[in-house]
Amino acid sequence: MKLYYSPGACSLGIHVILEEIGKPFEAVAVSTRDGSNRKPEYLAINPKAKVPALQRDDGTVLTEWPVIAWWLAKANPMSNLIPVEFEAETRCLEWMDYLCGTVHPQGFTRMFRASNFARDAEDEARVVAQGKELAAGYLETIEKLWKGGTWLLPSGYSVADCALFFLEHWAAGRAGIELPPRLKAHHKAMKDRPAVERAMKREGISP
Amino acid sequence: MKLYYSPGACSLGIHVILEEIGKPFEAVAVSTRDGSNRKPEYLAINPKAKVPALQRDDGTVLTEWPVIAWWLAKANPMSNLIPVEFEAETRCLEWMDYLCGTVHPQGFTRMFRASNFARDAEDEARVVAQGKELAAGYLETIEKLWKGGTWLLPSGYSVADCALFFLEHWAAGRAGIELPPRLKAHHKAMKDRPAVERAMKREGISP
Repeated sequence: MKLYYSPGACSLGIHVILEEIGKPFEAVAVSTRDGSNRKPEYLAINPKAKVPALQRDDGTVLTEWPVIAWWLAKANPMSNLIPVEFEAETRCLEWMDYLCGTVHPQGFTRMFRASNFARDAEDEARVVAQGKELAAGYLETIEKLWKGGTWLLPSGYSVADCALFFLEHWAAGRAGIELPPRLKAHHKAMKDRPAVERAMKREGISP
Repeated sequence: MKLYYSPGACSLGIHVILEEIGKPFEAVAVSTRDGSNRKPEYLAINPKAKVPALQRDDGTVLTEWPVIAWWLAKANPMSNLIPVEFEAETRCLEWMDYLCGTVHPQGFTRMFRASNFARDAEDEARVVAQGKELAAGYLETIEKLWKGGTWLLPSGYSVADCALFFLEHWAAGRAGIELPPRLKAHHKAMKDRPAVERAMKREGISP
């Protein structure tokens, strides 16, 4: 398998999942900061120009964070990364969709890609401030909806935790958002996992 | 079951799925246009303040378009709304995540909720134009990636078609975007389905 990622992007969460599973994989950096994701070579792999993308052993490519995570977890049941019970699996997917389909694009994308939203360079600070306010609000909603213990789901550690992790990494790092208590503890618990340590080291980012 | 929807919003697609399944359900309008989705009564049901939300017979509430669709399809296997084969099910989820997690929020939301993006009232026309350009680009990407026949998946009609439908309804209607050929044919095929007709009629919107 081959993971296409950009250092420190949301693909970090899929990188962690691959490390949790522990099967051999290749990690290929495609920087979204220098626009490598829009070059013809990468568009031939993922026409959506996004990371993460996962090229599987049969050559086919899978895209969309929650689906790559769900597929990896289901295809590797021994790793226990997704609940087997239907209702718990549903809640796992529900969290991943909220984290990757709302919190990321509506909150953090505004902060990190302000020029895609702003009227002009002068308007970017407003967009960043709006993104920060939205992101902080979403993180509070997650705190309020928390039903698990250390991990997001009451059933235990899952791929949903890996989605929450990249958001926490952004919040506590470049976004400068103080994490609510449960998320702060979750972030710490994640950083203590050897799989997380290995993924961060390979991407060349500090915890 | 109880569907919380806003007339003509993305919840229209879940409305169609419920009509396809054909079991009794109640449809409760929560207008996102007049802000009913932010009132305490609705926040008690869905703290994320979004539609669709599905209250199930045991009283629990499910949110996130792709997850509600996936759950409904899996819980009602006789309706044949999701492929049983693992790889095809994966592709079905992949489509739903792209349509609901990228095309909708990054493209159409800019057009329909321009004030949430713009610097001021004067700046809204720019945001609408940007949203229209992005949405049209996404629809072209879907056209290019099309692998099915009449329906989005080669395996036949599925909940992914109901996700594509609400986007086509927006594009051909209030967004004023000319649909690429395959999507245009898909839109027509969807409108010919009795379930679509019933859902649109109940929401009081014209095809």
